[in-house]
Amino acid sequence: MLEPVAVKPIGVVRSSVKEPRMGDWESLESTIVVQDRWASALDGLEGFSHIIVIYWMHLVSEEPRATTTHVHPRGDPRIPLQGVFATRSPVRPNPIGLRVVALLERRGNVLRVRGLDAIDGTPVLDLKPYLFYYDGVPESTVADWVQKATKGPEEEGQLQES
Amino acid sequence: MLEPVAVKPIGVVRSSVKEPRMGDWESLESTIVVQDRWASALDGLEGFSHIIVIYWMHLVSEEPRATTTHVHPRGDPRIPLQGVFATRSPVRPNPIGLRVVALLERRGNVLRVRGLDAIDGTPVLDLKPYLFYYDGVPESTVADWVQKATKGPEEEGQLQES
Repeated sequence: MLEPVAVKPIGVVRSSVKEPRMGDWESLESTIVVQDRWASALDGLEGFSHIIVIYWMHLVSEEPRATTTHVHPRGDPRIPLQGVFATRSPVRPNPIGLRVVALLERRGNVLRVRGLDAIDGTPVLDLKPYLFYYDGVPESTVADWVQKATKGPEEEGQLQES
Repeated sequence: MLEPVAVKPIGVVRSSVKEPRMGDWESLESTIVVQDRWASALDGLEGFSHIIVIYWMHLVSEEPRATTTHVHPRGDPRIPLQGVFATRSPVRPNPIGLRVVALLERRGNVLRVRGLDAIDGTPVLDLKPYLFYYDGVPESTVADWVQKATKGPEEEGQLQES
């Protein structure tokens, strides 16, 4: 039951950002190039303004993620240590990235998106339509350390130890 | 770059629901039992009202997902065929499930949640805090076939061919 599962990437990110960085992804446009065999599986995705991109933060090496249980969110030592599952840190047992992005265009097997926090060459594992009535929880609340922060979870995306 | 990645489940779903079904997950309470080695990595997660659960729909067999590019959403033949990536169908190249659930309680390595659309025994790949200001997109729009439907994406969750 808890044996490893083999996940075959269905595409790759192409971006002008070649190195991990912290934040500043919001206005970035990049593309997702889906394997030719799955091009037709994108049919209809262009009907959605936003999609969920699930990707693999391939530059996070095995060693830190096998041993790290706690991190300072955003790498900020003023924020108390939190369990990695309570953060969006890329250093986590499975470096699965998740981001809701704006879908600007679909052309064949290529999606042009805005706001994807993944660097060039990142393997993409899955794509889903974003459904606000289903995926959005406006009444949700967050931990105090998040509320006190002034900006987004800047450690999200590929701030990676390569 | 597009080689398979090995994802090691970090826990398992325990639920009264033993077989895949379509919909009716909203009020269901279930638990996520995280491996002992990752128990402390949950520290702080209890500060969030909702979490993102990423899981592996293990009952979806290899054959249909290797060959299926289009499905009728919700299995409803009245809805035109859509590419699988434009739907939340479990039959997709990588049967990765994604659900935002209410976190009711954390006790050690066990999380009690409400609304998880995964059956008993489902491997869990990752857990993240849900941040509405970051993950929510109220202004997003969806395809016509979604708008015309009366309920949620009922094919989501583990409606699986076992």
